[in-house]
Amino acid sequence: MTATANPPLIAGIELGGTKVNCILACGPDAVQDEVRIPTTSPDETLAAVEAVLDGWNGFAAIGIASFGPISIDRSATDHGHVLATPKPGWTGTDIARRIGRRFDRPTGFHTDVTAAALAEARWGAGAGLDDLAYVTVGTGIGVGMVAGGRPVDGLSHAELGHLRPVRLAGDDWVGTCPFHGGCIEGLASGPAIRARTGRAAETLAADDPAWDGVAHVLGQLLHALALSGVPRRIVLGGGVMTGMPHLFPRVRAAMTRSLGGYLSLPEVADAETYVVPAGLGGRAGPLGAVLLGMQALAAFTGN
Amino acid sequence: MTATANPPLIAGIELGGTKVNCILACGPDAVQDEVRIPTTSPDETLAAVEAVLDGWNGFAAIGIASFGPISIDRSATDHGHVLATPKPGWTGTDIARRIGRRFDRPTGFHTDVTAAALAEARWGAGAGLDDLAYVTVGTGIGVGMVAGGRPVDGLSHAELGHLRPVRLAGDDWVGTCPFHGGCIEGLASGPAIRARTGRAAETLAADDPAWDGVAHVLGQLLHALALSGVPRRIVLGGGVMTGMPHLFPRVRAAMTRSLGGYLSLPEVADAETYVVPAGLGGRAGPLGAVLLGMQALAAFTGN
Repeated sequence: MTATANPPLIAGIELGGTKVNCILACGPDAVQDEVRIPTTSPDETLAAVEAVLDGWNGFAAIGIASFGPISIDRSATDHGHVLATPKPGWTGTDIARRIGRRFDRPTGFHTDVTAAALAEARWGAGAGLDDLAYVTVGTGIGVGMVAGGRPVDGLSHAELGHLRPVRLAGDDWVGTCPFHGGCIEGLASGPAIRARTGRAAETLAADDPAWDGVAHVLGQLLHALALSGVPRRIVLGGGVMTGMPHLFPRVRAAMTRSLGGYLSLPEVADAETYVVPAGLGGRAGPLGAVLLGMQALAAFTGN
Repeated sequence: MTATANPPLIAGIELGGTKVNCILACGPDAVQDEVRIPTTSPDETLAAVEAVLDGWNGFAAIGIASFGPISIDRSATDHGHVLATPKPGWTGTDIARRIGRRFDRPTGFHTDVTAAALAEARWGAGAGLDDLAYVTVGTGIGVGMVAGGRPVDGLSHAELGHLRPVRLAGDDWVGTCPFHGGCIEGLASGPAIRARTGRAAETLAADDPAWDGVAHVLGQLLHALALSGVPRRIVLGGGVMTGMPHLFPRVRAAMTRSLGGYLSLPEVADAETYVVPAGLGGRAGPLGAVLLGMQALAAFTGN
């Protein structure tokens, strides 16, 4: 027996609204297998995931990165379950306890966006930074925050896409959030942009005036994240940001304008390195699930 | 030599704008000495603190809870220093490195409000809760957040009193924040209330219409803190909240209204137990400093 430097293999599961990515890996350059499954009913989907993991050997832990809302509170009776969701059939579904029991391995469980934040901090646009915020702007707007290399959480996971932003003067469009109308998600998500302009975000011209409101609102979110004190960098991904290079300078400028010289931190003042595009794209979710599994394993073994 | 269950003595220093509280203690029921010093120039003040600690024997670590902004980033060259502050003479003052070197003990350093959050979570209104937010509403509005019993931080400490809140319809008063005008601190701090009404907050009648705007704005802050996912409870203290019982129900109602049914968490839905008055009053700062010292000691000894 010799000591080995190889990190253990992890089974990572990114459970999304339309598909599940299963990955057997110990890092981005050490992926042994990858399987994609459609997300259908809870039972059918989880049984298919279990069948994939049944075919894999030698994984030491499992990480699950799920769409939310989910219960990540280890002291709660519903830990590992999906909470109230509009997704038919999924409310109350036990995910993490079922999978963890089935395979009898340490099992990490968090939101897909928190997992993506972990992956971007370890291997992506924040590589080497232990403190990072990740924002996905797509069908919804999700925020994952990492401090000291661990998810920032407690009672629950972040839902900061539902902050209520100050609006641009004269902009009183009602927004699309069924709870808040004009919260950040209700004003700047893909569906909000489509509802407001009649066009998909990716087909909207860079000089369309709707972008002013979107950039302003996302700048308000960055203002809030900077004030949290946590991130050394803010990483922006998701369908609305990806391939939209004109949006980054405008969002950075909106943040800087909103902070108004407050926070005398050179890291924040240099908005071009403080607010950056995601580095891992669609790989962030499954790789983040692997990191959740690694952290569950470390907690289990006391490392 | 026999093992002892007594926790080690800590020298706690709460460095405030007008006074410094020095405490030799291992908890709220085990205070050996307490000395108060006026805050004057940096050198005079820190020399007086050192003289107090010179007279104390047997403390194992030091905790410093300071007014901000301060550098708490251990990887920064200015760690332990005061950052740009309007307080004359204090910008750039080295506090924690000077004290730590002088006494050669593990030295914790954080903001006074983060320390108060730690103390409220351990011994105060959140006793037994590892995840808590503490808000002080006084001369300024400060937020301290604790997750898993540790301060939530990274690049810096929280400055969430400078969030920009959505305003009550028709309320366009400019606010007093020199950076943001109508941020939360610029609208709901003691000086903001005085600027708006011409009266000190503690002399303002409960039915004064100014309270509506204050409650609404503080409700926006609680909305944001709840969305962070961290707190199992939010503790409100400071001069504007203390002895203002009418304000608590209004702030809770404003939060609940703003969340609009989002976050299906019973802890948040029960606003009366989710948002509560501070339990330690002025003791939170020095006791929090003791906890900062305890955490520095634990990090040093690897416990």
